[in-house]
Amino acid sequence: MVGQLKPHIFFHSNIDSPDEWRAALATEFEDFTFSVGREIASPESVDVALIWTLPDDGLERFVNLRAILSLGAGIDQLDLGRLPKHVPIARLVDASLTRTMVEYAKTAVYRYHRRFHVFERQSRNCQWTFIPPTVSAATSIGVLGLGEIGREIALALQHEGFAVHGWSRTPKKLEGVTTHTGRDGLTRMVGSSNIVLNVLPLTEETRHMLCRDLFAQFKDGACLINMGRGAHLVESDLLDAIASGKIDAATLDVAAVEPLPRSHPFWNHPGILITPHVAGTSVPMAAVVTIAANIRRAMAGECLLHQVDSDRAHRV
Amino acid sequence: MVGQLKPHIFFHSNIDSPDEWRAALATEFEDFTFSVGREIASPESVDVALIWTLPDDGLERFVNLRAILSLGAGIDQLDLGRLPKHVPIARLVDASLTRTMVEYAKTAVYRYHRRFHVFERQSRNCQWTFIPPTVSAATSIGVLGLGEIGREIALALQHEGFAVHGWSRTPKKLEGVTTHTGRDGLTRMVGSSNIVLNVLPLTEETRHMLCRDLFAQFKDGACLINMGRGAHLVESDLLDAIASGKIDAATLDVAAVEPLPRSHPFWNHPGILITPHVAGTSVPMAAVVTIAANIRRAMAGECLLHQVDSDRAHRV
Repeated sequence: MVGQLKPHIFFHSNIDSPDEWRAALATEFEDFTFSVGREIASPESVDVALIWTLPDDGLERFVNLRAILSLGAGIDQLDLGRLPKHVPIARLVDASLTRTMVEYAKTAVYRYHRRFHVFERQSRNCQWTFIPPTVSAATSIGVLGLGEIGREIALALQHEGFAVHGWSRTPKKLEGVTTHTGRDGLTRMVGSSNIVLNVLPLTEETRHMLCRDLFAQFKDGACLINMGRGAHLVESDLLDAIASGKIDAATLDVAAVEPLPRSHPFWNHPGILITPHVAGTSVPMAAVVTIAANIRRAMAGECLLHQVDSDRAHRV
Repeated sequence: MVGQLKPHIFFHSNIDSPDEWRAALATEFEDFTFSVGREIASPESVDVALIWTLPDDGLERFVNLRAILSLGAGIDQLDLGRLPKHVPIARLVDASLTRTMVEYAKTAVYRYHRRFHVFERQSRNCQWTFIPPTVSAATSIGVLGLGEIGREIALALQHEGFAVHGWSRTPKKLEGVTTHTGRDGLTRMVGSSNIVLNVLPLTEETRHMLCRDLFAQFKDGACLINMGRGAHLVESDLLDAIASGKIDAATLDVAAVEPLPRSHPFWNHPGILITPHVAGTSVPMAAVVTIAANIRRAMAGECLLHQVDSDRAHRV
C-alpha cells in the first residue's frame, strides 16, 4: 500500500537544496511528483508543502493541500496569517538538526570558555598575554529553552563537565542540570551564568526577552549566544550592554533582519561574532524519514508528528 | 614515616603560581621548606627542584639535589646541557593537564569544523554568506603523537564523532582510531586529514617536522593545530603554505620564540590564530598528588614516576 502512494510535494526554501531533498524523497517513495518554483502544471494536485519560508504568492493556489511541513525546528519564519486555515502544520524534529545545533553550541561555548575570542583580538593586536585556562566545571552555562533541542544541548554541555542550568516556561527535569522556571528562576539563572545560551521558540511571550531589563540581571562580563530567533533580542540593548562592559561578548546566529544589512552596527564589532544562520540544518537523507512519515500521515488524513497547536501558535 | 618527611623544595616558573603550589604541597606534607627566587639561606639543603624553566643561575648550587620535577608534560623547555648530571628528571603527567589539553583541542577543532574562523573573517568584512554545516563524521582529524595526551585527545575527538587518525613513532592501538606509524603512515594520514593536530614531544627527530615537505602531502585546504612545541614548525614554510592555499588556517599555541616577537608575521595574519601557550596547565591542587609521590620517591632514593630516559633525551 505505502509503495503505491503518489504524493505531489511542493518544495520551497532559500537555504535547503531541492536536489538533495528530491534524492532523499526518492529513497522513501517509488513514485512522487516534486515541484519547485512558480510554474506548476496542476497546483490543485499538490498534497503537501515542504517549505522553509513562504513563496511570494503564498500557498492559496494549492486548494487541496493536506499538510504544511516546515523544514525547520520552528515555524515562526512562516507568516501564519498568510497560511491557508485548517491545513495542519508540523515542525521538523530531526536528530540531524538537533545534532548540528548541539555541535554549534559546543563550538560557541568552548570558544568563550577557553577565551579564544580574546586570543583572536590579541592576535590582531600583536599581543601575547597569558590567561590561565580554567576547568569546565568553573564555567556556568544557562540554557534558555529546554525543548527537544535545548534539552540535548544542556545534557551535552553537562557531559562536557560544564555547570549547566536550564530555564523553561513549564517545569522540566534533566539529570545533572539545575532547572528553573518563572521570572524569579530566570533572574536566578542569568545572574549565575558565565554564558547564557538562547534556544527558546519565538512566541509573543519570548519576543524581545533578551533586553536591557534582563541584561541588568546578568553576571558582570557574561557572554551571550543566540541560537533562537533574531526577534528574541533587542539589538540596541545588546550594543549598550557590551559598551558598558556588562556583557563581554555575543555570538549571534540569527538577526532581526536576515541577511544582516551591511550598515548594521553588529558588523565588525569587536565583541560580536555573527554566524549566518548556520547553527542547525537538517541533513535531507536523515530527516527524510520524519518527513516521509508525515507525508504518509497527511495522505491518510491522520494527525501529524510534531503538529503545531494552532491555538498556542508558536508556543512549543 | 611519610608525615615526618621534611623536604626542601625549590620552585621556579614564570607561568605557575608559587602560592598555589605552596598551598597544594601543604595538603601533602606537614612540614616542608618552599624556596622561591635567588635568596635561599642554605642551597645545599634543597632536595627537589620543582620547575618549569631553569633559573638564570641554574641549579648547580643545589649540591645535594635528588630530583628535578618538571611542571610541564615536556622537558624540552629545560636546557638539558645546563642541568646537573646524574640528577633524575621527571615529566609531569597529570590528569588536570591532560584535561585542559583535551579541552583546548576540542575548542580549536570545533572552531574549524563549524567554520567559525571563516565567520570571524566575514564578521569583520560585513559579509553574510551561508556555509552549510557538516556532520562531525565528515571531518577527518590526524593527531600527531599518541602519548598520554595525544591518546586522550584522539579518543575524546573520536567520542565527538569525528573521523580520527593517529600517528606515533612506535605502533599504538586505540579503539575507534585508525593508527599509523613510519614515514608512509605519516604521508597517508596527513593526506586524508581535514585538520592535523600536533602533540608530539620535541626530539631531534621531530624538530622541524612540520615543514614544506610534509605540508606538500597535506590535503588541499587543511587546517593545522600546533599544541606541541614551536620548534616542531618551520614558521616560514607555514606562511608559504597558507599563501599558496595549500593550508587554509593554523592555530598555534607555541612559537619558536615565546612570547612571539611583536614584529613576527604571524601576528594579525588572517589565516593564523595565536594563543599564548595556554593549551595545557596543571591545576596544582590536582597535580600535587603526582608531584608529592615523586618527592617521596626522591627522598627514598627510588626511581621517579615518568622519569626521563637520559639516553633518549626528549624522546618520550
